[in-house]
Amino acid sequence: MSMIRLRWIATGALLLAPAPGAAQVGNSVAQQRVPILREYLDLLAIPNIASDTANIRRNADRLLQMMAKRGLSPRLLEADDVAVPPAVYGEWLVPGATRTFVIYAHYDGQPVTPSDWKSTQPFVPVLRTARLDRPGKLIPLPAEGAAIDPEWRIYARSASDDKLGVMAILAAVDALRAQGQRPAFNVKIFLEGEEEAGSPNLRSVLTKHAATLKSDGWVIVDGPAHPSGARQVVLGVRGDVNLDIVVHGPARPLHSGHYGNWAPNPAMMLSRLLASMKDENGRVTITGFYDDVAPLGRAERQAIAVVPSADAQLREDLGLATTEGGGRSLLDLIHEPSLNINGIRSADVGEKARNVIPTTASATLDLRLVKGNDHKRQVARVIEHIKRQGFTVLDREPTMEERRRFAKIATAIPQSGYNAERTELAHPLAQSVIAAVKGSGDAVVLPTLGGSLPLYLLSETLGAPSVTLSLANHDNNQHAEDENLRIGNLWGAIETLAAVMRMK
Amino acid sequence: MSMIRLRWIATGALLLAPAPGAAQVGNSVAQQRVPILREYLDLLAIPNIASDTANIRRNADRLLQMMAKRGLSPRLLEADDVAVPPAVYGEWLVPGATRTFVIYAHYDGQPVTPSDWKSTQPFVPVLRTARLDRPGKLIPLPAEGAAIDPEWRIYARSASDDKLGVMAILAAVDALRAQGQRPAFNVKIFLEGEEEAGSPNLRSVLTKHAATLKSDGWVIVDGPAHPSGARQVVLGVRGDVNLDIVVHGPARPLHSGHYGNWAPNPAMMLSRLLASMKDENGRVTITGFYDDVAPLGRAERQAIAVVPSADAQLREDLGLATTEGGGRSLLDLIHEPSLNINGIRSADVGEKARNVIPTTASATLDLRLVKGNDHKRQVARVIEHIKRQGFTVLDREPTMEERRRFAKIATAIPQSGYNAERTELAHPLAQSVIAAVKGSGDAVVLPTLGGSLPLYLLSETLGAPSVTLSLANHDNNQHAEDENLRIGNLWGAIETLAAVMRMK
Repeated sequence: MSMIRLRWIATGALLLAPAPGAAQVGNSVAQQRVPILREYLDLLAIPNIASDTANIRRNADRLLQMMAKRGLSPRLLEADDVAVPPAVYGEWLVPGATRTFVIYAHYDGQPVTPSDWKSTQPFVPVLRTARLDRPGKLIPLPAEGAAIDPEWRIYARSASDDKLGVMAILAAVDALRAQGQRPAFNVKIFLEGEEEAGSPNLRSVLTKHAATLKSDGWVIVDGPAHPSGARQVVLGVRGDVNLDIVVHGPARPLHSGHYGNWAPNPAMMLSRLLASMKDENGRVTITGFYDDVAPLGRAERQAIAVVPSADAQLREDLGLATTEGGGRSLLDLIHEPSLNINGIRSADVGEKARNVIPTTASATLDLRLVKGNDHKRQVARVIEHIKRQGFTVLDREPTMEERRRFAKIATAIPQSGYNAERTELAHPLAQSVIAAVKGSGDAVVLPTLGGSLPLYLLSETLGAPSVTLSLANHDNNQHAEDENLRIGNLWGAIETLAAVMRMK
Repeated sequence: MSMIRLRWIATGALLLAPAPGAAQVGNSVAQQRVPILREYLDLLAIPNIASDTANIRRNADRLLQMMAKRGLSPRLLEADDVAVPPAVYGEWLVPGATRTFVIYAHYDGQPVTPSDWKSTQPFVPVLRTARLDRPGKLIPLPAEGAAIDPEWRIYARSASDDKLGVMAILAAVDALRAQGQRPAFNVKIFLEGEEEAGSPNLRSVLTKHAATLKSDGWVIVDGPAHPSGARQVVLGVRGDVNLDIVVHGPARPLHSGHYGNWAPNPAMMLSRLLASMKDENGRVTITGFYDDVAPLGRAERQAIAVVPSADAQLREDLGLATTEGGGRSLLDLIHEPSLNINGIRSADVGEKARNVIPTTASATLDLRLVKGNDHKRQVARVIEHIKRQGFTVLDREPTMEERRRFAKIATAIPQSGYNAERTELAHPLAQSVIAAVKGSGDAVVLPTLGGSLPLYLLSETLGAPSVTLSLANHDNNQHAEDENLRIGNLWGAIETLAAVMRMK
């Protein structure tokens, strides 16, 4: 496998050539990468929440232009319902190639709460000379040819998750072309537009466009690198499903003085319910929660054993004196299903708080699933647990008759979810990608990523195996406020994709 | 004591005359009360959050005009800091009067969350033909002389709490004047502008203007009537203090997939903490919480015993299958200190939820206090309880060093609070007010209201006893969204104030 490195020629196009070591690449070519940054910042400026139909279409249009410019014969792959975000498809077919792989990224991002952002507004991408909590400053896009420090960061929603994947794929195409090279296989590019919304239409898109998407496997570009900085080759992902819970108090809000210690408080009822779901060590106490887990094979356990532990560094960086799991490692724990509180809310707090007994208290739970779990079965266990705490569980608001009859009422509504997926370490696609990535720098191999992607759909609908490349800096705040990308990881991602496109 | 009733003369002024029964008053004069409603809706349209300095001044200016029009020699009583909401003062001195009483209401309102309001916007007062959850519709202010149904409601912030008190005092003055009558004592009117903010400057205002405010006692107009509809004469109020608690998680928000079941979740830590504060029956489990309660005297216990129980009606109306306290009555329970969760918040829920481990989870607690409790001592007990749950408690954000050292960290900040106050049933002021109110219709006497007012300041700074009149409809949503006033309660409040101004 060729060691592929990126370099600029005078015109600004990318050159590929064997290079001596990964560490030298960032600095040596930093001064020539302004056009990529400009194109990337322009893309990040387009709001990309999946439910924002008009702006999602603007993203898709921009991606069509970006692919057309690169000769990738782009088109939209629409779902049956044209109101949903389309996938953007492109291809680079290689005469004589015997293999075909689809390279995937998603161009939509997590919802945003702009008031929480300290760095910038989510869709006003900015450059900073350092991570927000370290000494640094905002800087403009440098002039072409100016030096670019790989430690600089781009702040914007989806800077890491996952327009990074989109940009890296397209810039890797530029890199091959500039070098006069072709991919080692037929490259099909699939950019999803509603991954962060739970991919509700992905199944129908894959089914409808199965002929177009025929391949020997998928390479998914998403997720963060290892905290050590090494890129991650991930053979599977956890499944995911969210559950919205609303606990009901009095039918109308009450003055906390006139009715306090008489009318039940839904925030207290919710607190008690949530507290019942995990023990002090973070072990989920819901009956059967860990029952279905499929154990890892020997090869997978060996792969995990050689991954360097980042736990101490993470604890230091995140200011954590202790972690859940009674001292077990992060890598160990992400091979188990999890239960996380994404948010809780009842009335207001602090300056906006009023002296009331609220009418409702809400929580959104995030359940991560591993091989063996089924998302509907796991949600059913949580609902069964809520019932066991004395709640009447509904999938709608209670009626007044129900309120008068049942002491504890919760509305529990699961969102669309999906199961975990894992490709065997011995699979040829896994072996090829691992070799290509390891050949271009530091890499670790994980049987399962902590995060989720609807990879099970690929095997279910297309029979396609998949391997995931996780290339963003680990401290990227993805899904939260102040999402960011370390610029050195952008260069590294382009380089990695170029290597994979040339994989044996 | 004269039975004072309200009637309009042709010019729209109020007439006072003995009337046959309270129930007949509402309908018989309903068609003549449009000018009061117009003046009241105009007052409610001025935003009145205590922290909104510009609008609070607009309220104070309007009140000066309303008092000047009535010949009440108004002026502002400023605190030392002129940036704080002023009290508005007026007086009707009666030659030869041997007694002087101050009548109090507050013109500021609780903070608002406009998006929660279903009826209207908080400061766009509207009329509805029925309570919002019952069949009815929005209607314009009727023409003068048109019939007004006492069941109609005004929706606006402070419609009940407590511009009702302001409007009733001024309209009662009109009523006496139109009847050619004078009060039975020197009337001083004191309208506070930051009661809902915890009256942080009331002490300094009372002290600074002690000579102006010299009196034999205060009559406070605030709070809701008994659920049966009977007006309440309240001899005391619970004290009140809020405590803001923030539980700290990781120093930056984390992806719930990559770090879920490893990084501790502050929403879960907060849930566990809150759940530890009360048992399933709503009994507060914090050590010493009930220790300081001063028992009620025999006269007070007898007064409580004759108040009709509204519990069954309230449970029906609020859709409550059970209540806290293991079956004890509301009236019994409000003579104990309480702990209520005003609100909880961590990240977002429902459609806005993201798959994150939040950095913080917050709650605001409301502690109500009875005679014997001290607000600082009660807060100290809660903080001691938080420590006993394993938390390091700070009054500021933790440093990174503290985060790395302590497994559980909470920031706990008490807001300004005050103690309970109670006037003995045998006190002459209590006896006079009770006689006047009972003489004008149904009334109940309560030793303590569930709600709070800083009455202790009156006895501390001025040596003045106080009695509270609670006249708003009980289902007024005060402190919450969709606050409203039943119009019949406005007429009743005016009538009651006129009777009190003539009390023997």
